Amino acid sequence: MSKYQDIQQACYKANMQLPELNLVLFTFGNVSVADRNLGVFAIKPSGVPYKDLVADEMVIVDFDGKIVSGNMRPSSDTKTHAVLYKEWDKIGAIVHTHSTYATAWAQAQRDIPIFGTTHADHNTVDIPCAPPMSDEMIKGNYEFETGYQIINCFNERKLSYEEVEMILVGNHAPFAWGKNGDKAVYNAAVLEEVARMAYLTEQINPKAPRLKDALIDKHWQRKHGKDAYYGQ
Amino acid sequence: MSKYQDIQQACYKANMQLPELNLVLFTFGNVSVADRNLGVFAIKPSGVPYKDLVADEMVIVDFDGKIVSGNMRPSSDTKTHAVLYKEWDKIGAIVHTHSTYATAWAQAQRDIPIFGTTHADHNTVDIPCAPPMSDEMIKGNYEFETGYQIINCFNERKLSYEEVEMILVGNHAPFAWGKNGDKAVYNAAVLEEVARMAYLTEQINPKAPRLKDALIDKHWQRKHGKDAYYGQ
Amino acid sequence: MSKYQDIQQACYKANMQLPELNLVLFTFGNVSVADRNLGVFAIKPSGVPYKDLVADEMVIVDFDGKIVSGNMRPSSDTKTHAVLYKEWDKIGAIVHTHSTYATAWAQAQRDIPIFGTTHADHNTVDIPCAPPMSDEMIKGNYEFETGYQIINCFNERKLSYEEVEMILVGNHAPFAWGKNGDKAVYNAAVLEEVARMAYLTEQINPKAPRLKDALIDKHWQRKHGKDAYYGQ
Amino acid sequence: MSKYQDIQQACYKANMQLPELNLVLFTFGNVSVADRNLGVFAIKPSGVPYKDLVADEMVIVDFDGKIVSGNMRPSSDTKTHAVLYKEWDKIGAIVHTHSTYATAWAQAQRDIPIFGTTHADHNTVDIPCAPPMSDEMIKGNYEFETGYQIINCFNERKLSYEEVEMILVGNHAPFAWGKNGDKAVYNAAVLEEVARMAYLTEQINPKAPRLKDALIDKHWQRKHGKDAYYGQ
Repeated sequence: MSKYQDIQQACYKANMQLPELNLVLFTFGNVSVADRNLGVFAIKPSGVPYKDLVADEMVIVDFDGKIVSGNMRPSSDTKTHAVLYKEWDKIGAIVHTHSTYATAWAQAQRDIPIFGTTHADHNTVDIPCAPPMSDEMIKGNYEFETGYQIINCFNERKLSYEEVEMILVGNHAPFAWGKNGDKAVYNAAVLEEVARMAYLTEQINPKAPRLKDALIDKHWQRKHGKDAYYGQ
Repeated sequence: MSKYQDIQQACYKANMQLPELNLVLFTFGNVSVADRNLGVFAIKPSGVPYKDLVADEMVIVDFDGKIVSGNMRPSSDTKTHAVLYKEWDKIGAIVHTHSTYATAWAQAQRDIPIFGTTHADHNTVDIPCAPPMSDEMIKGNYEFETGYQIINCFNERKLSYEEVEMILVGNHAPFAWGKNGDKAVYNAAVLEEVARMAYLTEQINPKAPRLKDALIDKHWQRKHGKDAYYGQ
Repeated sequence: MSKYQDIQQACYKANMQLPELNLVLFTFGNVSVADRNLGVFAIKPSGVPYKDLVADEMVIVDFDGKIVSGNMRPSSDTKTHAVLYKEWDKIGAIVHTHSTYATAWAQAQRDIPIFGTTHADHNTVDIPCAPPMSDEMIKGNYEFETGYQIINCFNERKLSYEEVEMILVGNHAPFAWGKNGDKAVYNAAVLEEVARMAYLTEQINPKAPRLKDALIDKHWQRKHGKDAYYGQ
Repeated sequence: MSKYQDIQQACYKANMQLPELNLVLFTFGNVSVADRNLGVFAIKPSGVPYKDLVADEMVIVDFDGKIVSGNMRPSSDTKTHAVLYKEWDKIGAIVHTHSTYATAWAQAQRDIPIFGTTHADHNTVDIPCAPPMSDEMIKGNYEFETGYQIINCFNERKLSYEEVEMILVGNHAPFAWGKNGDKAVYNAAVLEEVARMAYLTEQINPKAPRLKDALIDKHWQRKHGKDAYYGQ
């Protein structure tokens, strides 16, 4: 039995949640799940319809983006995943989708303002939209550079990837991550819903203010602080 | 057999309607059902996915917010429910969701204008949006104060909780209630649909007028007045 | 076997299409089907959830709105149906819903402009929005007067109910009709989709022009003219 | 066994994908699949509900629009399909729908701007909206002329039908095509999603810029260029 079976299975299950949560049309999305001990991650093969996915066809790739095991070509976004795993050593899974509302914000090249507690339950900041990449980065090692565009954005804004587990890449689409596949997919779905609510909020009130600091802090603390009292 | 079984079962069934009616993503909502004779209510355990809910795990809490029975931690919003039961003695169930359109109006910090008979069949007033809470209330006993923010809003506007069975808490999300679990969930779903229709109405005609008084009165009376002729 | 069985069955089946087509929330809609020879129509009982409907509980009412047979209270909108059957002698079924987009246009008090061939396949005019009723009509025999508000609107605009099989009642919601239950429900669903497309059209281009006359005529004729070539 | 059985079966399967992908209401759409060796195509019979479709009732038509085999009347749009097959000799299937967002852009008479990589994965240009047809074309051989309106638009803009596999016909609705039925339906669904995202993008940022050339080129090349690395 393969030593990669656990992450292949976790990766398969996480990928299959994307169509269930209406986060993908056709094959417009992918999830990877890492094994930090082995220094590799499992990722969806490129262009395979979800209904045809099989767990043991998840491709095994190392953190430099080199294929370690598998007969199929991995997701075309594999190098972006590799960079994020390499640079951010506490994430265990990554999700990329073209979910409708989050992608619309990315195309609009705007951060998603923090308008309410649904957002504050997950983040204390506007969800960042990294600017479109420079022509040099695009014409170079594109997917590799996409990873660094994400990391640079976090560094410039002094954000922690452990607190803010999602980003929009300008003109492109969202990425989300987490400690494991379930959490990363959860974050991708939360991002889509927060994006939809923020869009509607501005339509209903173009001058809607950002959430006040006391509420941002309260909702974050009750779910993630040292005295958190949400969940079991 | 537990004396709480009836409200646990009613609470379980009411909670399970939330995903069926598309009112919740993941665990972003909760329903409680009270037994006025016993002076307690049953409420969803915190953070448990709907598909994993079990009726006898509904937590039993008194109207001061103290756990009376149950091994799980109750919803993080439990104290808000407790305050409403304590202050408003004729409500039998409470629903809290982050349903998309109602939450967008809450984030926009606007009352939902009464634009048509769909609204007037259920309310005679704009659906109130309580202002965001003061920093003192937020930093104090937050969920407890959320209950009082709701009650204060009704008192200031001289609204009756028996007639208007729903509210938006500014920057947060909606609450609805009713004589029992089914009615409270019904009200939460009506609020979401009325919120959606009002949003679309303003998009189609930014100068759409409020419903005229004669229609407000007629639709309310035919469904709720002493000579009501709606239903069996 | 009851002589009303055929229309009760047809009425039951037509009503059951409303939730399938996402045209109703809870009980916010009703369908009636007439038997012109017997001078009566079958209509949904008031306030009964669709899942609990039974064909032989459809209430039989005459064209003056008097109950002829049945133990249940008919839809609160029954008199509106009666007036339309009495005044327009070629319609065989009527549908009333509060479908989301059509209701939003009714609340916005605007006709739905004819923007494309989807609309022209079914109508050659903007879909009329009758103005909100006068206070006298509302305070009088309300549902009866609603029927006359619809008929007056058609008369004033010189529209034919045989060509235009749908209307919005201002501040209220849509009505549609047709030769039988299936056609009336079809019209209600077409109205909802046309309402949605027209809303989006104006959002995408606030100056979108109405459809040109040649296209209006062509699409109408190819589906409904004497040399129609649509369908079998 | 009929020599048309293969395209009838492929045509049937492609048509049945339209309701699954939410691209049609009732019968508002049709797919055809061609056999280039036989010089014919199979197309949906006119006005038949999808649930009643049967593969061997797909009508066989030649590239001049003449019925070759079949007892039913073909889609009213058949001549438009015939013209496209005749003029563009490398397409194997055509889809016409009135899908909601694409139709709204057609009614708005606007090209869909290329705002992001979801679009660039499939096209390098704004999705063209052919202007509404002249009165002469409409009053003449309408469906035949609709085909030429599409071809004229591509010629005037110097677009290749092999690269851009979709178009909006102003005031009407979208057409898409591809090498086979699956690809043509895929293109129709991508068009609908791109139309929806572009609408939302402009709502979120009315000044959203078009995608930069480097990204347009990169995404097209990685999926369709000579060194493409998307898919298996």
